[in-house]
Amino acid sequence: MTMQDDARMPESAPRDSAARNARESAQEPARKIGWHKGYLSGSRPDVRVPVRRVHLTNGRDVTLYDTSGPYTDPAVGTDVRRGLAPVREGWIVGRADTEEYAGRPVRPEDDGIKHTSPRGGLRNLDAVFPGRPRLPRRARAGQAVTQLAYARRGEITPEMEFVALRENVPPQVVAEEIAAGRAVLPANVNHPETEPMIIGKRFLVKVNANIGNSAVTSSIEEEVEKMTWATRWGADTVMDLSTGRNIHTTREWVLRNSPVPIGTVPLYQALEKVDGKAEELTWEVYRDTVVEQCEQGVDYMTVHAGVLLRHVPLTARRKTGIVSRGGSIMAAWCLAHHKESFLYTHFEELCEILRAYDVTYSLGDGLRPGSIADANDEAQLAELRTLGELNRIAKAHDVQTMIEGPGHVPMHRIKENIDLQQEICDEAPFYTLGPLTTDIAPAYDHITSGIGAAMIAWWGTAMLCYVTPKEHLGLPDRDDVKTGVITYKIAAHAADLAKGHPGAQEWDDALSDARFEFRWEDQFNLALDPDTARSFHDETLPAEPAKTAHFCSMCGPKFCSMKISRSITEQFAPDLAATADDEEIEAGMLRKSKEFAASGNRIYLPLAD
Amino acid sequence: MTMQDDARMPESAPRDSAARNARESAQEPARKIGWHKGYLSGSRPDVRVPVRRVHLTNGRDVTLYDTSGPYTDPAVGTDVRRGLAPVREGWIVGRADTEEYAGRPVRPEDDGIKHTSPRGGLRNLDAVFPGRPRLPRRARAGQAVTQLAYARRGEITPEMEFVALRENVPPQVVAEEIAAGRAVLPANVNHPETEPMIIGKRFLVKVNANIGNSAVTSSIEEEVEKMTWATRWGADTVMDLSTGRNIHTTREWVLRNSPVPIGTVPLYQALEKVDGKAEELTWEVYRDTVVEQCEQGVDYMTVHAGVLLRHVPLTARRKTGIVSRGGSIMAAWCLAHHKESFLYTHFEELCEILRAYDVTYSLGDGLRPGSIADANDEAQLAELRTLGELNRIAKAHDVQTMIEGPGHVPMHRIKENIDLQQEICDEAPFYTLGPLTTDIAPAYDHITSGIGAAMIAWWGTAMLCYVTPKEHLGLPDRDDVKTGVITYKIAAHAADLAKGHPGAQEWDDALSDARFEFRWEDQFNLALDPDTARSFHDETLPAEPAKTAHFCSMCGPKFCSMKISRSITEQFAPDLAATADDEEIEAGMLRKSKEFAASGNRIYLPLAD
Repeated sequence: MTMQDDARMPESAPRDSAARNARESAQEPARKIGWHKGYLSGSRPDVRVPVRRVHLTNGRDVTLYDTSGPYTDPAVGTDVRRGLAPVREGWIVGRADTEEYAGRPVRPEDDGIKHTSPRGGLRNLDAVFPGRPRLPRRARAGQAVTQLAYARRGEITPEMEFVALRENVPPQVVAEEIAAGRAVLPANVNHPETEPMIIGKRFLVKVNANIGNSAVTSSIEEEVEKMTWATRWGADTVMDLSTGRNIHTTREWVLRNSPVPIGTVPLYQALEKVDGKAEELTWEVYRDTVVEQCEQGVDYMTVHAGVLLRHVPLTARRKTGIVSRGGSIMAAWCLAHHKESFLYTHFEELCEILRAYDVTYSLGDGLRPGSIADANDEAQLAELRTLGELNRIAKAHDVQTMIEGPGHVPMHRIKENIDLQQEICDEAPFYTLGPLTTDIAPAYDHITSGIGAAMIAWWGTAMLCYVTPKEHLGLPDRDDVKTGVITYKIAAHAADLAKGHPGAQEWDDALSDARFEFRWEDQFNLALDPDTARSFHDETLPAEPAKTAHFCSMCGPKFCSMKISRSITEQFAPDLAATADDEEIEAGMLRKSKEFAASGNRIYLPLAD
Repeated sequence: MTMQDDARMPESAPRDSAARNARESAQEPARKIGWHKGYLSGSRPDVRVPVRRVHLTNGRDVTLYDTSGPYTDPAVGTDVRRGLAPVREGWIVGRADTEEYAGRPVRPEDDGIKHTSPRGGLRNLDAVFPGRPRLPRRARAGQAVTQLAYARRGEITPEMEFVALRENVPPQVVAEEIAAGRAVLPANVNHPETEPMIIGKRFLVKVNANIGNSAVTSSIEEEVEKMTWATRWGADTVMDLSTGRNIHTTREWVLRNSPVPIGTVPLYQALEKVDGKAEELTWEVYRDTVVEQCEQGVDYMTVHAGVLLRHVPLTARRKTGIVSRGGSIMAAWCLAHHKESFLYTHFEELCEILRAYDVTYSLGDGLRPGSIADANDEAQLAELRTLGELNRIAKAHDVQTMIEGPGHVPMHRIKENIDLQQEICDEAPFYTLGPLTTDIAPAYDHITSGIGAAMIAWWGTAMLCYVTPKEHLGLPDRDDVKTGVITYKIAAHAADLAKGHPGAQEWDDALSDARFEFRWEDQFNLALDPDTARSFHDETLPAEPAKTAHFCSMCGPKFCSMKISRSITEQFAPDLAATADDEEIEAGMLRKSKEFAASGNRIYLPLAD
């Protein structure tokens, strides 16, 4: 692993609105603080793995995982109207197992526009995103183009090499975990802009952030900005859950500008196409929507195929019934037709579609509990058993698969939950929403769920879907997205530590060293959120010298435990490094305490020291 | 248990500045929303246990634990200059085992005023708090006046009856847990204003909030206001960690106005009296400070008597040395004198002082880890073994005792930590600071530690010391105090649920019922923080009718899973309540789905419905 073209943060003005997020929180402070974007090189020049390199004032560097994409690299020009460079294109084309084709025509109703609308009429992809004309791509006849298929054949793709460098593990481990179905590498052949990442319990715990306009508010630009903002703070994937107007166009703009895999719930758009009437949904409308999204480049799709007709009555006695939107739509469809779910009866056909684009399944938990009272109940477990069955079918079709999980679960039932999922679903990656560990704190559900998320990730959940402070109450704004992502990065990292992930503790150690040595700037630069850490410090002690002073505002200048403690370390550490012998320790102490007295008992050294 | 004089919230103007907190968040919204202060009655008229009674729009009441004191009761006049009514005075006097005495004279240096100061000269307690002249009280000769002593004799004190009502357990359980040393009821005979509460693993998990001016900022009034603010949001005890000027007077005002037990670290004030020079501390200065605080009414005191001379070198190789202020002061003293800690050598004498006032020990963990790297290390465990020894000595003197715990601990080492504490300290109540589960998120350490706090409380910690977002960075302001308390109430309640505390889930169930039934106002009123929940909701849908509308902003009017789900419940629940028989279910479904079709497949009922 070598370092390559590490570029300093620029002084230049921002280029466009999508880059604004990166600029505000990365480039501006970067002039003052010591970090910049770097890259790890692989076996070929186009395998360049982004990292965040923090330069400490003691001359050391700390290298951190980086999800922020080219937006934080001043050497790369970005323009939301043209999209990101298709970094994977060469790999995809090079495999020669896919081909371009004309693609499904884009229709006005894809954007929620009624047939009778004066704005109606056919449009093509170029019109939706004029910045980079392209044709969709899919597997050539007879070809399996999924990372699962490659891994099963023993191939190490550039994508696998990329994530191996990113995770600091051998590429063989990546291939093995994917081949075993214990990890997924979501990477649609039509989303060449994505920087490969992996989701599996052997790897760093990942975080998903949801965005999406709704019937009530928000615009395309806002959603693109939320995506870049979320990845700036560490989101590993983003789900676009838009349900209102411009759903196709919003998704196209998000995809063309996203350095992380994008997930969706195609059912939401399908429902829009039938005017929100669940009973009018058909397999044909749904299939067409899935193809539409596969061609756009969606990397993984939530499919609520585990909600069966016979499961619905199991929810009737629940405290909060069905809280999943997808689950309730399918339940309503099943009831209306008194038939088995079309997602279930057409599941193999769906597998063949996803296989042609390497779209990963996220098998949705439509019957997840929506309250503490409903946790781990029979409705949930019945669906989980169905998901276990579908997981095996998907794998038989070479389709990468993860399993979604709850929801609301009290702490003492969380382990049972993931243990059952791992057993029933052959260790397929678990992807959970929290879980929330209590229902009593609306407006703080990032915290009620952050607790559960940390625990379930420690016990093996591979990816955590964030929850924002607005959960249950309203739509998250920019601040809520950031709070949700930071909270979930904490949960994920706490789990990485508890799992003993190699290298995870280096980050904590570097920050604690900085704290102990009063290197305030290094503390800020290493913090998950340098901006807020710095501003909190400055509220109490705004003057610049305070950031290098050997005290802090909690104790004041003459009274600081870290300071005293450091002087103890300075006295004892040199002597005691090599010995655990009690007598030597005592002798050392006697000698040192005489030195202490001789120095005039000065515990608090002068600040200049 | 009966209800007594439940009084509606008033329309009247506020009385004084301390009541302002209560007014802002309790009384003002109370006019709109449905909750008020109530009381549970005991066996005698002066046992009146405060509760928060939430009136739901469906006619039901939910009764919640209430720590906010008389400030939220419009029937009680409060005035910070006069202090709260001494509700326990009758019980204390009635026991006839204590007596008033002249007390230690208050000296200028008690408030950090130098002998040479022009403001110098003797003052008495009346001058410090003129509103309610009083003499201090202590045990008569030969009397043991601690709740532990009473419990051991099989007496159920009014304090025990009070907490039994508050916790909804039999009084015998309270007495047994106290007698066994598994719980403490901190209640200095000189703090008759306190509403009794209990700390022990058989009871609801408690939360402590720290306040305190420092050398750098803040005033007496601010600290009193922080105390009322913290208890308003649910703090069960408050520690006054002031270190600067006016330390005695601040504490007096806080005590006279506090409905919850107050804790301190007497060492901080003792150090002020020797001008911050740890080596000049003496047992005499310390003892005098402890007596001073006992007479004022401090309910529990952190004593770092477990930091022994031989432990200090064990910290030398640590990543972050000694991070406890008390621990580092004692370590410095031990080094300076090369003697054993005076807190350890005079521990039995200290027990006799605390016993005379019923002050509870909080045996401090001066060597707690300050980073993930230092968790559960030999320095910490060596101190813990000493605390186990001291716990037995304290109990032999009838002194109630709890044990403080870390700190920074990764998730996989938390259980080990509390299991060791419970074993070594004979199940004495554990009182932990978090623990923080990672070091990488300064500015979010309420969250890094809230995760660890929930887990360690599930596993038996009796009280959690909150951590605010400003931890490691600066002094918490009003918003930080609230955020810290709410975060820790979440952790405590999540643990109550996981422990299966009787009645804990009723709160969650009531809120989830309200959510499922679209009773927005009930959701807000039941929320841990009604104000923020309401304001988040109003950001997206501010109009008043939206609070009763059968949809919310996440899904929009025509698309809401709760809505669909509720209609499923309405269809199936009446039929399926009494049966788990598959055939009956199928038959019911067929019938119901025909009805569904006959109704025109209307899944989304009109909003007026």
